[in-house]
Amino acid sequence: MPKLRLLTPGPTPLSEPVKKALSLDMIHHRKQAFQEIFRQVQKDLQYLFGTQQPVLILTCSGTGAMEASVLNLFNPGEKVVVINGGKFGQRWKEIAQSRELDVVEVKLEWGKTVQLEQLSSILDQNQVQGVLVQASETSTGVLHPIEEIAALCKQKNVLCVVDGISAVGISPCPMDKWGIDCLLTGSQKGLGLPPGLGFVALSQKAWDKVAQVKARGFYFDLLREKQKQAQAQTAYTPAINLIVGLAESLKYFREKGLAKIYQKQRALTELVRTGLTQLGLELLAKTNYTLGLTSVILPVGIDGNELLAILAEKYGYLIAGGQDHLKGKIVRIGHMGYVDYVDLSGCLFGLHQALLECGWANKSRHFLENAMEVYWKIMAKEEDLWEKKTK
Amino acid sequence: MPKLRLLTPGPTPLSEPVKKALSLDMIHHRKQAFQEIFRQVQKDLQYLFGTQQPVLILTCSGTGAMEASVLNLFNPGEKVVVINGGKFGQRWKEIAQSRELDVVEVKLEWGKTVQLEQLSSILDQNQVQGVLVQASETSTGVLHPIEEIAALCKQKNVLCVVDGISAVGISPCPMDKWGIDCLLTGSQKGLGLPPGLGFVALSQKAWDKVAQVKARGFYFDLLREKQKQAQAQTAYTPAINLIVGLAESLKYFREKGLAKIYQKQRALTELVRTGLTQLGLELLAKTNYTLGLTSVILPVGIDGNELLAILAEKYGYLIAGGQDHLKGKIVRIGHMGYVDYVDLSGCLFGLHQALLECGWANKSRHFLENAMEVYWKIMAKEEDLWEKKTK
Repeated sequence: MPKLRLLTPGPTPLSEPVKKALSLDMIHHRKQAFQEIFRQVQKDLQYLFGTQQPVLILTCSGTGAMEASVLNLFNPGEKVVVINGGKFGQRWKEIAQSRELDVVEVKLEWGKTVQLEQLSSILDQNQVQGVLVQASETSTGVLHPIEEIAALCKQKNVLCVVDGISAVGISPCPMDKWGIDCLLTGSQKGLGLPPGLGFVALSQKAWDKVAQVKARGFYFDLLREKQKQAQAQTAYTPAINLIVGLAESLKYFREKGLAKIYQKQRALTELVRTGLTQLGLELLAKTNYTLGLTSVILPVGIDGNELLAILAEKYGYLIAGGQDHLKGKIVRIGHMGYVDYVDLSGCLFGLHQALLECGWANKSRHFLENAMEVYWKIMAKEEDLWEKKTK
Repeated sequence: MPKLRLLTPGPTPLSEPVKKALSLDMIHHRKQAFQEIFRQVQKDLQYLFGTQQPVLILTCSGTGAMEASVLNLFNPGEKVVVINGGKFGQRWKEIAQSRELDVVEVKLEWGKTVQLEQLSSILDQNQVQGVLVQASETSTGVLHPIEEIAALCKQKNVLCVVDGISAVGISPCPMDKWGIDCLLTGSQKGLGLPPGLGFVALSQKAWDKVAQVKARGFYFDLLREKQKQAQAQTAYTPAINLIVGLAESLKYFREKGLAKIYQKQRALTELVRTGLTQLGLELLAKTNYTLGLTSVILPVGIDGNELLAILAEKYGYLIAGGQDHLKGKIVRIGHMGYVDYVDLSGCLFGLHQALLECGWANKSRHFLENAMEVYWKIMAKEEDLWEKKTK
């Protein structure tokens, strides 16, 4: 049996300090030891989100955090724009419809980003309350231009609601600076934790809107959570061991600094993209790509399921396939959480071998050395492009 | 610093196999290794709940599972009876009201159980769709007569919805045998896991009702979960490491057998009750008491907060105070999860000492030996009263 490496776009491998924290014996969520951890976590989450607003911690998956945002920000019958460029854009739409919102859908080809002119004219033609969008669309690996979308939303006076599930802690998404009204994420992507926690932060404008929404639900009532979490407690029993693990994960972000982490994520991404391109493979997201995963289009005639099986069973790499209509046609390599360049190099090697075993004829040499050199070139820079962007 | 022991009514101490399982590296929730664990867990949960129906696993706290039940079983405007005998009865009421249900409240003095005649006449006078009740009310330690309530509900043709959060895995609550229509629990009580998972099972009659409920929400849509979980998957990313821990916890239940576990819980409960009574203290729940915690009324003049502080700081025991109007007037000793008779004996000793240090004059002797003897007397029985009840 090969040594198994998990390179899916969430969940991710866990670091040793996080694993240790997860296995600590229980502490009580209404007692002081927990509250001290909670207060530090709250501060660290504000740094991670780039906000002065409280970042609320919910015991649920990322989808729960998405629904919480919709339930608290919009009354049934209100109109919103949903940018739907993949499975999670589709999820925004389904959640909005389950809230009985009037959805104006901007449907994109999977792999493409939204065009700002198109969005601007849709906002001019429709009286909407908000725009729901992914920062990073996990099903394709596309990065939407959130800074520009948020600026446009501000100009048109609508709420900019951002699913940051595979973006927060991976690529810059400074909430206050960019003027995002709602930013949310989950624990199992950039934070390198098991799934089970959701995080939501709202701008003052968004909080003003929440106060006007009546039926916000019970478990996901963010006003109640805000009041409780101001006292370093949660409204209901939280996932205690995940929060203790979160403290370890956030300590790493605080000590390393976000800029360095984004730099590493960019270096990992360019490593993977260089390797795949030099192998002669086509990438799904051509220009606006996320730093947490890379989607690659499989050559004609290659069976995606067979490929994934060989890669897992022989080379020890668990990566993700495509979702919905891209099932069997693309594979997605995750590079977020506790993952380094060696893990990814081995994955590129295994992927190439598995492709050959599936009947691909394109034998390549030197792609690995080139890919790894790109990584170290980016890492060697004192000041990174992304670093400037977040200052 | 004393060695710290957590004896609150949830969360509870964790066993070593559970702690180890929680810290294992991530596996992917759409891959085979996870699905194998999930299928075993599903079978074991059916054994725990005493049902042939699927027991759905949700990533949320117990309160989330309560709201999920209400959202799926009742349309806004429908009428339900809520049995409110404590903080969690109150929570049923608040959840039902947030769903805009018409609530008929049966308000009980804290520490008392519902009278069946009273409930029967309320059901005759009101056309209701369901009765919402706690099996064990965690804020008081009272056990409601669920077998009888479920029979009455069946007779009156209303749904019997039971919050089993501090009952499932602690005292018998066989769902199918008793005719419960909805039974739910959380992970941090009898199961001896961290919080973060909720569990819900519905009878066929309840599932038939769900099909008639339109706006069931998104994250808590139980029909969608039922379809997904039939394929050993969850609708959304689940709390993977808690489910891996759950497999360990349920293995213990399967191997020991429920009857033996209930016998141990009864022995622990009688140990605590004997010790407290022999100390001259008054118990809050006189006759119908839960097997997972014991509430004791503090002598007049004793400051509950001071008592809890001395018990924690000097004797190393974290127990719970009273909630709402009983704050400072009672304390609650948890005896569920990974807790044994030695942990509890030390707690009784520490509680007595702390009472004396708070100014109580009632010096007792021999209460510990008597309490521990009661424990071993119950444990020595081949056949236990509770064992018969669940056969």
